[in-house]
This record gives sequence, C-alpha cells and structure tokens, in this order.
Amino acid sequence: MVSIDLNSDIGESYGRYHLGNDAEIISLVSSCNIACGFHAGDPNVMAKTVQLAEKAGVGIGAHPGFPDLNGFGRRYIQMDAESVTDMVTYQVAALAGFTKGHRLHHVKPHGALYNAAGKDINLARAICKGIQNVDSHLLVYGLSNSQLVLAAQEFGLPVVSEVFADRNYQADGTLVPRSQPNAVISDPELIAKRTVEMIKNHSVTAITGETVSLQVDSICVHGDNQKALAIVRRLVDQLKLDSITINKAK
Amino acid sequence: MVSIDLNSDIGESYGRYHLGNDAEIISLVSSCNIACGFHAGDPNVMAKTVQLAEKAGVGIGAHPGFPDLNGFGRRYIQMDAESVTDMVTYQVAALAGFTKGHRLHHVKPHGALYNAAGKDINLARAICKGIQNVDSHLLVYGLSNSQLVLAAQEFGLPVVSEVFADRNYQADGTLVPRSQPNAVISDPELIAKRTVEMIKNHSVTAITGETVSLQVDSICVHGDNQKALAIVRRLVDQLKLDSITINKAK
Amino acid sequence: MVSIDLNSDIGESYGRYHLGNDAEIISLVSSCNIACGFHAGDPNVMAKTVQLAEKAGVGIGAHPGFPDLNGFGRRYIQMDAESVTDMVTYQVAALAGFTKGHRLHHVKPHGALYNAAGKDINLARAICKGIQNVDSHLLVYGLSNSQLVLAAQEFGLPVVSEVFADRNYQADGTLVPRSQPNAVISDPELIAKRTVEMIKNHSVTAITGETVSLQVDSICVHGDNQKALAIVRRLVDQLKLDSITINKAK
Amino acid sequence: MVSIDLNSDIGESYGRYHLGNDAEIISLVSSCNIACGFHAGDPNVMAKTVQLAEKAGVGIGAHPGFPDLNGFGRRYIQMDAESVTDMVTYQVAALAGFTKGHRLHHVKPHGALYNAAGKDINLARAICKGIQNVDSHLLVYGLSNSQLVLAAQEFGLPVVSEVFADRNYQADGTLVPRSQPNAVISDPELIAKRTVEMIKNHSVTAITGETVSLQVDSICVHGDNQKALAIVRRLVDQLKLDSITINKAK
Repeated sequence: MVSIDLNSDIGESYGRYHLGNDAEIISLVSSCNIACGFHAGDPNVMAKTVQLAEKAGVGIGAHPGFPDLNGFGRRYIQMDAESVTDMVTYQVAALAGFTKGHRLHHVKPHGALYNAAGKDINLARAICKGIQNVDSHLLVYGLSNSQLVLAAQEFGLPVVSEVFADRNYQADGTLVPRSQPNAVISDPELIAKRTVEMIKNHSVTAITGETVSLQVDSICVHGDNQKALAIVRRLVDQLKLDSITINKAK
Repeated sequence: MVSIDLNSDIGESYGRYHLGNDAEIISLVSSCNIACGFHAGDPNVMAKTVQLAEKAGVGIGAHPGFPDLNGFGRRYIQMDAESVTDMVTYQVAALAGFTKGHRLHHVKPHGALYNAAGKDINLARAICKGIQNVDSHLLVYGLSNSQLVLAAQEFGLPVVSEVFADRNYQADGTLVPRSQPNAVISDPELIAKRTVEMIKNHSVTAITGETVSLQVDSICVHGDNQKALAIVRRLVDQLKLDSITINKAK
Repeated sequence: MVSIDLNSDIGESYGRYHLGNDAEIISLVSSCNIACGFHAGDPNVMAKTVQLAEKAGVGIGAHPGFPDLNGFGRRYIQMDAESVTDMVTYQVAALAGFTKGHRLHHVKPHGALYNAAGKDINLARAICKGIQNVDSHLLVYGLSNSQLVLAAQEFGLPVVSEVFADRNYQADGTLVPRSQPNAVISDPELIAKRTVEMIKNHSVTAITGETVSLQVDSICVHGDNQKALAIVRRLVDQLKLDSITINKAK
Repeated sequence: MVSIDLNSDIGESYGRYHLGNDAEIISLVSSCNIACGFHAGDPNVMAKTVQLAEKAGVGIGAHPGFPDLNGFGRRYIQMDAESVTDMVTYQVAALAGFTKGHRLHHVKPHGALYNAAGKDINLARAICKGIQNVDSHLLVYGLSNSQLVLAAQEFGLPVVSEVFADRNYQADGTLVPRSQPNAVISDPELIAKRTVEMIKNHSVTAITGETVSLQVDSICVHGDNQKALAIVRRLVDQLKLDSITINKAK
C-alpha cells in the first residue's frame, strides 16, 4: 500500500501578530515545521504550537531560518558556515525544549535558507552539522535532488525528499523560479492530479516537456489562507480516492 | 573537609562586541553561567563558550535573561508568567544544544530577572516551571534566602544558595541595593576574609550589625575587568590557606 | 461651532505581518498616530503609512513606544530617563524622515510608555525632552489630567488632552484599569452618547457616580477590527447629528 | 593650497558594549560617520556621539547599514530596493534628530551596504533615493569610481569620492578583496607616503603596476585600535610635512 507524508509550515505568529490557520492545516497533514523564533515565532507561540502538534499526533519538525523577522526569513544573508551551523543548533535545540523530552521528528530549513541550501553544498553542510550537533537521528527535509539532500546523506543523517504540489519544475529538476511566469500552479484539481502522479511515478513532467525523476517522500503544502487550505483539502480527498495513505515520514 | 562552589558569568560577548575575560576567570571558578542570546551572547559565542567551559571541566549553567540586549538584561520588563516560563525554556534548551548531549549543570537567571525573582514568588515560579520543562534535574542557583530558592524547592528542583562576596547585606538577609552607599565592597583583602567567614559560620554580619543566617553553597564572583580578576585571585588564595576546596555544587 | 479631533493608531503592521484596517479608519479620523519601528511598524510600513495619511489629509503623529516588538510595547520596561529621552528623539525623528520635509503634527507615546507617563512625572519629562530635541512646536497628546499633560506644559510644548470614548473613568479622573470589570464599554450607542456629553460638558460621570472635569481636545478611537470600526462609524454619525465638526487639533 | 578631508567611523558602541576610541580619533579627522542603530549604535550612543562630534567641530555624517547588529552590518542581505530606500531614510533621519536642528554634513553607507552599493547601480540608486527623501543637500560619500558615486551624480546629490589609505587597488580601480593576500597595507610609513601621492597625483599604482586615476576628496581612516590610531597619527604628521590641510569636504 502506498503512503505519503504531507508537511506544512506552522507556528509563524509573533507576539501580537497572528499568521496562518494552524489548527485547520494541522488536521490535514502528517508533519509540521515549526518556526523557531529567528524568522517567525516566539517562545510563547512555540510552546503553544508544539502542544497543538502533539495533540494532533503529527511529526514535529524544527523550521530554522535566517535571523530576519522583518524579512520573514525570505532574504538571503551572507553568513559564514560556522555561524550557520551554530544558529541551526540554537534554533533546533530551542524548539526541542518544548517537547517535554520527546525527540523531534525532523528539521526543515526555512525560506531563503532552504533555497540557498538547495544549491550551495557548503551552506547545506553547515546546516547538517548544526542539526547533527543536537541529534543525529533527526530527519532532514530537503528539496528532492537538491544539495541539501546530498549533504544530509554525507553526514549520515536520515533524509526526506520533498516535492512541491503547486510548483512547476524545470528540466534539471529544480523549481521554476517565482520570478518567472507559470512558476506556481493554482488550480486545486490540477495540483491534486499532478501530485498523485508524482507519488505513483516517482517523476514529474517539466515545464519544457521532459520527464524528471524525483524521490517523493513528502509533499509540502500551505495553509496560510483559505485558498491554500482548499487546495490541501482537495489534495487530501484525491489521495483517499487513489488509496494513498497520509503518514508521517520515517 | 569544607568545600565551596565558585560561579561566574561568562559568554557575554556578542558578534563584533567583546566583553569579559572568559579564559582567565574560567581557570579560577568551578561553575559558570553562560548567556543564552537574549541579554547577551549569540549562537556562535555560546558554542565557543561551552567548548571553553567543557575543556576547563567547570559546571556549565544556562544564564537566561530578559529579551533586552540593549539593556544587557538589567532592566525589569513586566512580562506575564507564561511568557517568562516559555522564554526560560527557550534559552535553557538553546544553550543545552551546544553540549553534545551532555546534561547542563545548572540554571541561574541573569540581572533584572534574577533580582526580581528573588522578591516575587510568582515570577520565581514562572522561571522554575520553564527550567522544569527542559530538565527537572538541573540545579537552580538563587540568592540565599530568596523567593527563587523557595520556588525551586516547591518545584522539587535541586537548589544552590549563593552569596555575594563583594556585597553588603541588610538585616533581613537581602543585599544592600546598589543605589545606596556601601552596597559594594571593593577591598580584596576584606572580601576574602569575609567570604571565608560566611562559608565557615553560615552567616554574615549585616551592615547594621545583626548576624544573618545564610545558606552558603556557592560564591558568585566577577571577571569582567582586571580589578575583578584580582579580587577573585585573592579569594582563591585565601580559600587555599583556609583549606577550603573549590568544587562545583552538587 | 463645536469641533473635536478624533485620533487613532495606525501603521502597526510589520514585515510579513499585517495588522489593522488603516485605510478604513483613516477615512473617519482627523489625526493618526504612526508606529515608529520599536513596538510595531518598520521603515517600509512607515513610508507607506505616511503616504496614506498625507493623502487623507489627517494630522500625522509619531507614536513612539518601548523597544519591544514581541510585547507590542505593552510591557513596561524600567529604562533610565536619559535612555527614554534618546529613544523618543530617535523614533520621532525617524518618522519625520518620511514626510518629505513637512512638519509632523504631533507625538503620542504608545501603550505602556503612554500609561506610565500618565502617572510618573519623571518619565513624562524624559519623553517631553525627547520630543523637544526634535521640534518644540510638536503637539503632545496625553491623557486628560495626566502627568504627561503636566510635563508637556512645563516644557512649553503645546498639549492636546485626550479622552477615551470606550473606557470608564474613576473618581480621580484616571481610567478604570483593564484588570477590573467594566473597564471597557462595548455598546456603540452608549459610547457615542457618552462621547458627545464629554465634549459638550467637559466632564464625565465616574463609575462611582461623581462628576469628573475633563479637558477634551481629542477622542482616541480604535480601528483594529470590524467591531471597533463600527463603533467609530456610529460615533462619527452621532457627532454629525449633534453638529460637532471633526477637525485635527491645533 | 591643497586640502583633504579625513573621515572615520565612530559611535559604534551599543548598550553595555564599548567599541572604538571615539574621543581620540575625532581629534585627528575632519568628518565622522556615526552608526544609526541598525548595525551598531543605539539612541543613547548616537546622542552622545553627536555631542562629541559637534564639540570637535567635525562634519557629522550618518552611517546607515544593514539591519544586522549580530553581523555588524558586514553581511550582505538581499533586500528589495524599496526596503533599502526606506531603511536609509529611517536611519539618516533618526541620526539627524540628535543635531538640534543643524543640517547633517553627509551620509556614508556602512560595511556590506557600502561594498555592494559600489558595484550594484540599483542598490546604489535605492540608497541615494533614501538620502534624497531626507535632504537633497547631504553629501554622499562613496568609493572613488564606484557605482555609488555614479548614482549620487544621477540624483543630483553632491558627492565626495573617498580612497582607502591602507588598501591596495586593482587595475580597474576597485580594492583588492580582503580574501586575497596584500589586500591591506599595515606599514604606517608606507600608508602615509602613499596617501600623499594619491592626493597630489589623483592616482594610485595598482598592485599589478598600472596607474589608476582616482578622484580623491576624502581619505577613510580607522581608529578602532591603538595600531589603527598610530597609523592615522603618522598620516596626519605626513600631511602637515607636505603642507596639506585637513578640512571637511564641501
């Protein structure tokens, strides 16, 4: 029987600022990535979000990002490798502090850190070293075929290759950049069908027509607005129709 | 044979900003309190300071403070209890991330958080709850006779009562506030003698002449300038002369 | 003909975080208080909010707060007077940078800074000194009868005494604290009637029955949710019915 | 008679953290660049540093940087142009708030912002727009021959081209990157001689032997340690021997 992991970012509120629909998205996914206070989240939000995730029984992941609340971790910062390692250790360990001694499930870098680590092997290694400092059993979530997946394998860390349900791919397996047209797919129907195909075929059709092989361990979905939630609900229905179980990655 | 713990704050540098004489003070004490990135310290400084402390074999403590780098954690912030609990959990867990799986030795709140927790039982409880969330075996360092000591006992956390070698006491066992004259003692000779008496007699003579009972498990010393280091060196010599061993608290 | 100033806080978004209904509230008031980046707002939000306010023709005020984004400036921080003065100068001047050389209309401290300055004359003076450093012609908005009003008068700064449409008053002219029942009034009808009476009678009936004299130059209103906006709309209608014009304070 | 401007960064302390020898360096230079609270400095430090500079009679410049205290503004952050413009406006205006109504003398971007603006015309334009928003009479300090100088000229802002006394140049007029050997010159004697030649000949000999034309309006010097101060003192002596007057740029 085929099963897949669905993961989503949660815990992105900060103080007086509320963001996302955590309670709703968490009822649909099997794993969640919780912000650690550098690009979003604060200790109070983290405590509450971990409780929410524990209650829902989903896999709890740390979601470390660049130290840039104002840019929501979406702006690349030219940090040296050692500083990256230490800030990842700090953030992952801080989140783990809220699990009452339970082991975290995974780590997934956020935003610009995730994107840069997909292409820069040295940055990817610095991140993996920071994860390993805390716990070498943590799963590392990375873009399928990316340098982050490669680095995690080098470090002997267990890897989860993820794909994006709502993004078009290029012939080399990378995502079509958001700066280009057709980067994002918005039709829930198309997204659902396309995702099932990725899971079944271990591949995707690139925007230029080529078939691209993909390791598909997890699907990244979004819950930050009602339209995004509708897309996930449609996807969940389709997976059920195709007898694909939603289970957290192992 | 009499033994005593000497503790000092270290790891207070931040990015380009250097503070303290960590290498020198760490060679003189048995326990250290490492800043956790909220009032001082950053992930890189924390990683290096933990390494330094591990190499020296001293007890490694987390030194959580108010989120106020500009005020160095010395300004009281009116936070609700839940936020205090969560920020203590966050900071203690973050520091623990740098110990490669070794258990921390203790937690000592910093600056305004320490002072306020000495007088406000609710704040003290909020801090203890935050420590307990991470690890209920961690020693809690608090001012002898303070509310923080009381709260830690309520929570079943092991307590270390500390005294200040260079401060005068009031009849009720609290420190003479820094705003008053004679709050601080600066003569190394007097500090050394006075400290030995506190250790031997479990009491101190208040500035108004009364004898005040004290639980003396640890002595807090400072290493932030050459004069402070000279005071500690003189104290260490005196302890040796009086056959008092320097050992980390248990 | 009677006229009154209506003021409201705006520009409280931050990076990815959206807060408030600035465009709607600004069409109803005559003056606005724009966050300056310490408790809310960022340079980009400030630039856009000043443009919005200029287009609407309302009085543009700086809304300085404690340096505490996580607490939204609602937590008291024990800062020394000099630091308060300098942080007010910094924030007011920074906001003025976005007006293309036009003079700001006023300054109104935010949250915990506003509340503390209402009771602590030294804090109030420190704030006024910070305002005066930038421009001694700026109006200072303070709670009617408060220490902030007194301090501004001492400094020769023009003062606007404001009242709260939706709050109950105590016999001594201070607001019933939010921690007590009946602190806040929520009925739009009652708020509108009560406000008109305050404007006409220069007084309010305290929660304990006494008549309290008030200087009423401006009414503080809120626009952070749809219910708050409905209250302001009802108030604006009532003012029209009673032939009270809405004009920015002079 | 030949005259030259000497400029140096000051006001880089932050809260408890002390950095630099401001009083000493300010007695040697004619212009200073004061940190504005984003990469260094805080409102209190800014207020004191402006007073110090006013007393010394040197040209007071704003020194805006990336919002990155931990990285001291030396790490490039991928910000969009609008955010750069607004953060420059914010920082320059904030510093101007401490001059008691006197016009600032100049603006010089700091660290990674300065370096990136030297090569990226769009970033340089975003900075110039931010300066122009505050005051279109402010001098813009930029590396001689750089994109920042070009952008300032496009905006009609008065420009000061500066050179580095202690750095080697490449054939294209750019500095030898710090990552390469021989980037920095450390011999005070050589630095002094070389600087006089740059001033007199309007050119420098590149590390590969070519003569590179330079516009030399100001010399950037450093005062962050005793060795740096010694270099500046030697340079000042040499300028006197060569009858070159030290005057702030106009």
